[in-house]
Amino acid sequence: MKTGRLESFSDGVIAVAITLLSLDLAVNGPGHGTLAHQLAQRWPQFTSYVVSFLVIGIIWINHHSLLSNLETIDRVTLFLNLLLLLFVVAIPFVTATMAEYLNKGGSDSHLAAALYAFVSLGMSLAFAMMFLWSSRQGQFRMTLDRRTRRSTFVRFSFGNLVYVAALGLAFVNAWLTLVLVALMAIYYSFDQIALAR
Amino acid sequence: MKTGRLESFSDGVIAVAITLLSLDLAVNGPGHGTLAHQLAQRWPQFTSYVVSFLVIGIIWINHHSLLSNLETIDRVTLFLNLLLLLFVVAIPFVTATMAEYLNKGGSDSHLAAALYAFVSLGMSLAFAMMFLWSSRQGQFRMTLDRRTRRSTFVRFSFGNLVYVAALGLAFVNAWLTLVLVALMAIYYSFDQIALAR
Amino acid sequence: MKTGRLESFSDGVIAVAITLLSLDLAVNGPGHGTLAHQLAQRWPQFTSYVVSFLVIGIIWINHHSLLSNLETIDRVTLFLNLLLLLFVVAIPFVTATMAEYLNKGGSDSHLAAALYAFVSLGMSLAFAMMFLWSSRQGQFRMTLDRRTRRSTFVRFSFGNLVYVAALGLAFVNAWLTLVLVALMAIYYSFDQIALAR
Amino acid sequence: MKTGRLESFSDGVIAVAITLLSLDLAVNGPGHGTLAHQLAQRWPQFTSYVVSFLVIGIIWINHHSLLSNLETIDRVTLFLNLLLLLFVVAIPFVTATMAEYLNKGGSDSHLAAALYAFVSLGMSLAFAMMFLWSSRQGQFRMTLDRRTRRSTFVRFSFGNLVYVAALGLAFVNAWLTLVLVALMAIYYSFDQIALAR
Repeated sequence: MKTGRLESFSDGVIAVAITLLSLDLAVNGPGHGTLAHQLAQRWPQFTSYVVSFLVIGIIWINHHSLLSNLETIDRVTLFLNLLLLLFVVAIPFVTATMAEYLNKGGSDSHLAAALYAFVSLGMSLAFAMMFLWSSRQGQFRMTLDRRTRRSTFVRFSFGNLVYVAALGLAFVNAWLTLVLVALMAIYYSFDQIALAR
Repeated sequence: MKTGRLESFSDGVIAVAITLLSLDLAVNGPGHGTLAHQLAQRWPQFTSYVVSFLVIGIIWINHHSLLSNLETIDRVTLFLNLLLLLFVVAIPFVTATMAEYLNKGGSDSHLAAALYAFVSLGMSLAFAMMFLWSSRQGQFRMTLDRRTRRSTFVRFSFGNLVYVAALGLAFVNAWLTLVLVALMAIYYSFDQIALAR
Repeated sequence: MKTGRLESFSDGVIAVAITLLSLDLAVNGPGHGTLAHQLAQRWPQFTSYVVSFLVIGIIWINHHSLLSNLETIDRVTLFLNLLLLLFVVAIPFVTATMAEYLNKGGSDSHLAAALYAFVSLGMSLAFAMMFLWSSRQGQFRMTLDRRTRRSTFVRFSFGNLVYVAALGLAFVNAWLTLVLVALMAIYYSFDQIALAR
Repeated sequence: MKTGRLESFSDGVIAVAITLLSLDLAVNGPGHGTLAHQLAQRWPQFTSYVVSFLVIGIIWINHHSLLSNLETIDRVTLFLNLLLLLFVVAIPFVTATMAEYLNKGGSDSHLAAALYAFVSLGMSLAFAMMFLWSSRQGQFRMTLDRRTRRSTFVRFSFGNLVYVAALGLAFVNAWLTLVLVALMAIYYSFDQIALAR
């Protein structure tokens, strides 16, 4: 099977998910204090919006990068891609939940941040599985030498471990999780899978 | 008419429908019990989300598989495709309704599950009609031999009968319907229309 | 300018608009009477959903048909296309409003139906203008003979007059408008612009 | 990297954002005064819908025009594009907020209009940066002569200054901001980047 329509469907899903993030920005409107006050109270929402926009944006770039290097895809790849999308689509939900509880403190904020880290980890694991499966099945356009395989494996393991750490740190402080996920997004934006060299 | 833009439009509709499933995950937020409690109460929503995500994902894979085997499409195919999309787009609605009533028991939960099975059946019938019409009109790239036609017919009949059973079982227990639809999705993911061999 | 990306953007907008129709199907949930009662009360919503799904689906088919016959597009076509999309995107809003007031009777139901007819008329006029502009500018792949031009003009005039009639009948009875718009959709599905012969 | 999938993803995001504008048109329904009264009260929403539809539509046309002139894109372009989309996706939110406060007067309406101008300015700046970066990196299909570069620079500077003025005028009167943004959209629709001559 060719990658064309898989790209187009995934692009659609990711585009809708990234746009739904904006639904959580809405203020309550007149009768709920001044607008300045309402906007100030919603800064966890604005911060989370920027971080999650970056997270989804980066996964799109990496997804694009991966698929453009694949010659063919099989049924397993299709399912791993669906699994990846299942987590991507859940990001607006966990972002809104985390933003809601970020400043409440206590176990609720810990759980909300853990949920956010869990979905990020799921997305990251699904992407790693998709990459590893395709490389094992020889679906890439080019032959990956041992060194590339190993460095990619190290890179994915590192990323997933950071998400596990973000999950653990959620139970210390919710903001730590958000900062760690943001740092990961920035890190991934500099160290992308660049196979096309 | 070529299949290109029909694919692109259908991909868009299916992508939006699958993403709208996430709108039903939202919790009520602070002031409605602990977050842990709210999340625990929403497990029908989480289960339904995963099942419906799989259902829509599989129909996308099969839709993709069908269209990639078509040489041309005619007006009737366009309308059967619209009918298919009409049911796909209704899935977030019936998923949310079923999740809402799944644990309430009684006739409300039966009706909610029957509605879910009805829309799944409608989707399945529309897809079968689209396939049969295209094969009758000789719109496939390859000639389908009698054996392929017969096995496909058996396969679609089986699928639709299972959905009819799911509709009937809804009036026994709503969970039975959800499990049966989930099993069908898993079954379809292994036994896809694979004409391109 | 080539038509490719205009198609892809328009497909995206139309796909989102057609999917948003489903948001209006949602029931209120437990505590608002039995589900059977709630579903029965929402049959204006279900009817309107089917009609508007057909209306948007047909405009997509005709839009697809028009663009596949264009060789080039200019800036005016881009703006007429934006105008068309502005009305398409408003259809979920006017559909929800009409469904809400359909059974209330009185001037509210008349106004709601008139709003629905007005947006349908706007969509139809924008499409006619887009067609006429492209044909005047010689942007079609084939030369349109005088007969084709005249028959197309008659066809568009007829369509727009029916929508004007639907607007007028709204002030007699809201259901008349809905039925007339549904009939127009069915009519257009049989008498499409078929230039590619 | 080729521009194809960047276009397809951006088209998806812009298409969803432009369609989400319609969510703000919804009336409250029966029990909140006559429909005529409700519609009359929502004219700030209708005006803002048209203006923002035009603003997003124009940015799409210019984005399309820019990308169709690029031979290749690099990582920086990808990120500037993400930044552009981050502002585009926020437009339904700032449109709804401005419409809500437009007729309330006082500091709330000023702040709401300033927020709208701020997001428009961010979008415009991100687009200018994307253009300038691509031209500096020689990613265009054609060589841009000094004159084209200078006139483009002047054009972008003018646009951004107008948005800064719109931001300032927000604190005088919210309507002034809306009118100025609408005028800019009309201006841009006549003076687009037309490199493909």
